[in-house]
Amino acid sequence: MSPSRAPAPLLAALSDGVEVFDLGRQYAVGMPQSPNHPAYWHALPRRHGDMVRSDGGSAANDIISMGTHVGTHIDALSHVSHDGKLHGGLDAEDALTGGRYEQLGAHTIAPMVCRGVLLDVPAALGTPNGCEAGYEITRADLEATVEKQGTRPEEGDVVLVRSGWGRLFAEGAPYVGGASGVPGVGEDGARWIAEHKVRAAGADTIAFERLAPGAGHAVLPAHRVLLVESGIYIIEAMDLEELAEAGHHEFLFMLSPLALYGATGSPARPLAVVSRG
Amino acid sequence: MSPSRAPAPLLAALSDGVEVFDLGRQYAVGMPQSPNHPAYWHALPRRHGDMVRSDGGSAANDIISMGTHVGTHIDALSHVSHDGKLHGGLDAEDALTGGRYEQLGAHTIAPMVCRGVLLDVPAALGTPNGCEAGYEITRADLEATVEKQGTRPEEGDVVLVRSGWGRLFAEGAPYVGGASGVPGVGEDGARWIAEHKVRAAGADTIAFERLAPGAGHAVLPAHRVLLVESGIYIIEAMDLEELAEAGHHEFLFMLSPLALYGATGSPARPLAVVSRG
Amino acid sequence: MSPSRAPAPLLAALSDGVEVFDLGRQYAVGMPQSPNHPAYWHALPRRHGDMVRSDGGSAANDIISMGTHVGTHIDALSHVSHDGKLHGGLDAEDALTGGRYEQLGAHTIAPMVCRGVLLDVPAALGTPNGCEAGYEITRADLEATVEKQGTRPEEGDVVLVRSGWGRLFAEGAPYVGGASGVPGVGEDGARWIAEHKVRAAGADTIAFERLAPGAGHAVLPAHRVLLVESGIYIIEAMDLEELAEAGHHEFLFMLSPLALYGATGSPARPLAVVSRG
Amino acid sequence: MSPSRAPAPLLAALSDGVEVFDLGRQYAVGMPQSPNHPAYWHALPRRHGDMVRSDGGSAANDIISMGTHVGTHIDALSHVSHDGKLHGGLDAEDALTGGRYEQLGAHTIAPMVCRGVLLDVPAALGTPNGCEAGYEITRADLEATVEKQGTRPEEGDVVLVRSGWGRLFAEGAPYVGGASGVPGVGEDGARWIAEHKVRAAGADTIAFERLAPGAGHAVLPAHRVLLVESGIYIIEAMDLEELAEAGHHEFLFMLSPLALYGATGSPARPLAVVSRG
Repeated sequence: MSPSRAPAPLLAALSDGVEVFDLGRQYAVGMPQSPNHPAYWHALPRRHGDMVRSDGGSAANDIISMGTHVGTHIDALSHVSHDGKLHGGLDAEDALTGGRYEQLGAHTIAPMVCRGVLLDVPAALGTPNGCEAGYEITRADLEATVEKQGTRPEEGDVVLVRSGWGRLFAEGAPYVGGASGVPGVGEDGARWIAEHKVRAAGADTIAFERLAPGAGHAVLPAHRVLLVESGIYIIEAMDLEELAEAGHHEFLFMLSPLALYGATGSPARPLAVVSRG
Repeated sequence: MSPSRAPAPLLAALSDGVEVFDLGRQYAVGMPQSPNHPAYWHALPRRHGDMVRSDGGSAANDIISMGTHVGTHIDALSHVSHDGKLHGGLDAEDALTGGRYEQLGAHTIAPMVCRGVLLDVPAALGTPNGCEAGYEITRADLEATVEKQGTRPEEGDVVLVRSGWGRLFAEGAPYVGGASGVPGVGEDGARWIAEHKVRAAGADTIAFERLAPGAGHAVLPAHRVLLVESGIYIIEAMDLEELAEAGHHEFLFMLSPLALYGATGSPARPLAVVSRG
Repeated sequence: MSPSRAPAPLLAALSDGVEVFDLGRQYAVGMPQSPNHPAYWHALPRRHGDMVRSDGGSAANDIISMGTHVGTHIDALSHVSHDGKLHGGLDAEDALTGGRYEQLGAHTIAPMVCRGVLLDVPAALGTPNGCEAGYEITRADLEATVEKQGTRPEEGDVVLVRSGWGRLFAEGAPYVGGASGVPGVGEDGARWIAEHKVRAAGADTIAFERLAPGAGHAVLPAHRVLLVESGIYIIEAMDLEELAEAGHHEFLFMLSPLALYGATGSPARPLAVVSRG
Repeated sequence: MSPSRAPAPLLAALSDGVEVFDLGRQYAVGMPQSPNHPAYWHALPRRHGDMVRSDGGSAANDIISMGTHVGTHIDALSHVSHDGKLHGGLDAEDALTGGRYEQLGAHTIAPMVCRGVLLDVPAALGTPNGCEAGYEITRADLEATVEKQGTRPEEGDVVLVRSGWGRLFAEGAPYVGGASGVPGVGEDGARWIAEHKVRAAGADTIAFERLAPGAGHAVLPAHRVLLVESGIYIIEAMDLEELAEAGHHEFLFMLSPLALYGATGSPARPLAVVSRG
């Protein structure tokens, strides 16, 4: 057993004081989600008082039933294939063992503690409330945002692209945006992200990428570019409003997905952490 | 909107290099868990190839069904009551709104980024592999461990108590330990923890506290002392072996529970992060 | 042990030939249902080939997650209360044991093999395709239908009220009818049913009773009259089209609900059986 | 629309009086089942009082999560394959559409109203309480039972084979019988059944066929003979005690499975109906 080493810089930074931003959404029955995935449901099989122990103690518990791509979540590389191949040219059939994605499953996503960059696109474009429904965030928009903010995503970082659409989460169905379309990067914006060799990209929408009005999830090129071609994870339905409002574009990013063996994604509650000024 | 502030100490510590220890267990069908909670089940409603988009793309997805107190998880303060009261004297009935614990539910657990302390009790006691089944970790054991390690949990920290029982996780049923009993703190050890005013306490067993052989979960005094009396969260079924092996007793602790509205707990994958020496 | 008795009339009728009408709907992901209940979801955890036995055998299996009031189903007397009371004046709290409705739960519904009467209301009213959205089937309509058909429901029978709305099932959302309203009996029609002392009443709509346009399930008087006041079960989302088309208004009715302990309802697939002419 | 025909023989038999025997088991959390299938779980998302309507009405509802092969259920022909083929030589892969068994799925099982024959094997063998654990019911045993009872299963009937093992259901784990073995037909008994060209065969055990002590479900030849080779459905975990006790060996059998699209089986509650003597 190696001796304990004093983790000085990190713990020192911690004692100086940190502020934590919650980038995840609450999971509640009826929250807006894609209809392609099992709805989030929750119930209490047992409430306090249903059974009381000999010493007056009682417990309540839960059952949840849900898809992994509902609410704030991360897509594993097993989630999307193209022409039958997953990332790295792996045949999607071969990735399965006993009916689960032993290869590239959600359990293979390493927990992330790394530099995070928030690209507040609407702020950079002068429309801080948010981009229009169905607006495609272009390579030029992303570059302009980097320029304005002075923060470029680097290799191994996580980049979060704010569209402002997250403001509609509380409204429910409008957030899903099937008819209206939803703003986000398109294929070229995804390539721009891939060129930066980040480990993951996140957005404040259900589908991460731009959805044209009425198009639904018919074709998702950014998913192909990121998950299949580049091995870059996608994080969806994030809450980026508070972080953007506070003006933090560079931070310690943490995401610890549930290690769901052989799954195609995991619900997650990412955090952005900054030193207190 | 305030200008972006350079989060220097934290990000500087990050660029110096960090090492991340995964303190959570994998979730897989058949993993050992308490029979009192809905079993973890997972399936892929859709596999690659079931449906192929016009551009050759295909997606796979998941459905999961589980209790929140299975695998590595955190207990919310809504989980345990005593004589009909939750923490703070709140009547358990009053905590419910529309059939969910609006008060003290899992959604009220703030994400944690704080100092963590690992108390490697068996190492301190000279039996590094682990404590015996049914062994009660006493106040004296905890103090001796603090003495030996030179790391005392402070107010607001998270304390993790290693019993070594986590080594049995891979064996399945023996880890549940109904007949054999399971090591852990008892009522007095829980009081010692409470006196330190930590925000949460974790262990490498399903029930966190000591279970006498054959006793099952009949009476759980440590849960009452911590959750009900002290408002201290409990984290269960952690994997502390690697962290203990590496000799890290003090670290940045991170736990970001899923904000499950009105639930009594949440699956979680805590992390211990240290600066690279 | 008593000797075997020859069940002559029933088996004789069987050998003469019977025709079976399926009065239930298929359960499939995405089928129209009330949003108040957990959605029906199904997946195959295991498909053929995932695991192969030593002799070349393989098996596939399922996981389903659903509410009990989705698709064709029967409401137990534990489903609806009024001013805190269930049928028979039983306090709804007292009906619970350990968090389940030990009293009046779905497990208390005796399997039904009895006379069934189909009241084809639109046919009797001269609009055989169906009643209008939001139309209230009145006491007069029911009497007129009995007159025309010459079949009156008697004590212990099951009465099925066709509105014709079932034709919309295949269309999905329109069948739910929130905005349009849905035809069915109102409070007085329910009283007419109750006066006949039937054991159950069924309809070809999700909510059984008339929904005014836009009203949703805000107030459901027929449920109160039947379940709470009269102890008469309600069967919803039936498929009555084929039976009506064939002109059978009197038949052997069979419904065998799943004995789900302590539940408030059960999915079911009722049958109407007639002798072949 | 054809005129209503008077279904005289069947309804006449009904009015003469019938007795209904429930051949299904109650579904409750913790009931004995095969560990290979998702456990039956049930909870009430809403209890009376959680929400109260403007008129004082309130409702309670359910969520259930379960495998289809738990409790009393019927196996569809999509459940078992041999060397990659389902019944009729259909390739198991070809039977799938969009990830579900469009061909031979549970939704293709026609509701059954037909003659049923109970073969009370232990009674015929002089051990009326039941067969021994792991006992193989042979072709000779089945013939002897037919001889003794004077009731032979004919083409299109449903045959129910009582082993008496159902008496252990209430004991839980012993009923599963992994270590002890479970009585039932073996391969040759299954062939005997198949030769009679019945439409389905049922038993009072979880696995229908004989399990040798400690063998588990490693190889199940009767499943192959019946489902794959003969297209005969299998009904498991039935309750045959009351029917046997009453001495009814011939009756009207009814089973109406839930039409679960693309599934491999369905929970069901079969009935045996006889005329009152």
